[in-house]
Amino acid sequence: MNFTIGFIGGTGEEGMGLAYRFAKAGHACVIGSRSIEKAQGTVAELLEKDASLPLTPATNADAAAAGEVVVVTTPYAAQEATLPPLAATLAGKLVVSTVVPMAFEGGRASLVDVAQGSAAQQEQALLPHSTIVAAFQNLSARKLLKGEPLEADVVVCADDAAAKQRIMTLAADIEGVRGVDGGPLANAKMVEGITVLLVAVNRNYKTQAGIRIAGIR
Amino acid sequence: MNFTIGFIGGTGEEGMGLAYRFAKAGHACVIGSRSIEKAQGTVAELLEKDASLPLTPATNADAAAAGEVVVVTTPYAAQEATLPPLAATLAGKLVVSTVVPMAFEGGRASLVDVAQGSAAQQEQALLPHSTIVAAFQNLSARKLLKGEPLEADVVVCADDAAAKQRIMTLAADIEGVRGVDGGPLANAKMVEGITVLLVAVNRNYKTQAGIRIAGIR
Repeated sequence: MNFTIGFIGGTGEEGMGLAYRFAKAGHACVIGSRSIEKAQGTVAELLEKDASLPLTPATNADAAAAGEVVVVTTPYAAQEATLPPLAATLAGKLVVSTVVPMAFEGGRASLVDVAQGSAAQQEQALLPHSTIVAAFQNLSARKLLKGEPLEADVVVCADDAAAKQRIMTLAADIEGVRGVDGGPLANAKMVEGITVLLVAVNRNYKTQAGIRIAGIR
Repeated sequence: MNFTIGFIGGTGEEGMGLAYRFAKAGHACVIGSRSIEKAQGTVAELLEKDASLPLTPATNADAAAAGEVVVVTTPYAAQEATLPPLAATLAGKLVVSTVVPMAFEGGRASLVDVAQGSAAQQEQALLPHSTIVAAFQNLSARKLLKGEPLEADVVVCADDAAAKQRIMTLAADIEGVRGVDGGPLANAKMVEGITVLLVAVNRNYKTQAGIRIAGIR
């Protein structure tokens, strides 16, 4: 079943990649940005791949209002400033945290300490009346933008079972991807950490690696 | 090339499972315990699977002395008491950290905060003159003990490239397993976290899951 997906900070690589895949699967995607011009540029870029994709540019506020499901793809450092003004609009909605609190030094990534435990739990603190689901942190933005089938699982963490199931189903709309139940929202910390590990693997093997959970289904 | 592997706290499930597999691959394994009787019991149990396995019971001190490579499979809570008395014996040796700092509450696992960052880094602090390699945290002890091929990768983290390579090769001695270079020892934190996530996956899917890194080789 298709629905409208809003993106907060949707003009970065991860937002573009996910919007591209969700739009390909038939979901109307509203790409939000602080600057409507930037959102328009991103939509134009994606429409070059396929002019029939259901993509609309918007401000972050309009994307938050339009989305039945809203995906946060801001950088971690921007989350604390970007989300509070949208909290009222996002109240009662399913909001997806894709954010990884990561720092780089000398080409090496490390996980930044988050007072709430993880970027996803910080998002829950910033949006107390939304239902937060953590997902998609480990997918390669570059592979998403290429449009080929991915070889990766999306580990989905949330405290709300129905919301978690909905995003597991959404994950499976990306060709090659399975949604895997990773437990409660607090487990997002470990999923965010996997991204840091994949940065090291990518560096060591000159690749864009993903993870698979072996031994299920 | 076969070599002697000592186990510190080798009578638990994880130590037994790894010793079983390494011995099957031809490495002489010395299973250490605080109690020699307990070590004898574990070796007897493993020899029931295959009487030809090169397994010897020992005290932890003797296992530390005997091993060219020494694998620590104590519970996390026991590490701080067990390792310091062995530090002189283990100086100059390759020591493998398999330990996960995990707490359980209501059937749910969580990662325990470690002042040094991870159990592996704590091990390095306790054994300052040993070369620490973090590995094997994500393998199911039950699957190791079953003897069937595993469907899992072992992400190996270390600051010493040669030691890391050696343990990646050792990992591949377990049927179905690949050793994957996960970067520096500090990345062990994220690998330890994956075990906590797998506990949730195992609970949700009634399985013994492992991870695969997709997109390499």
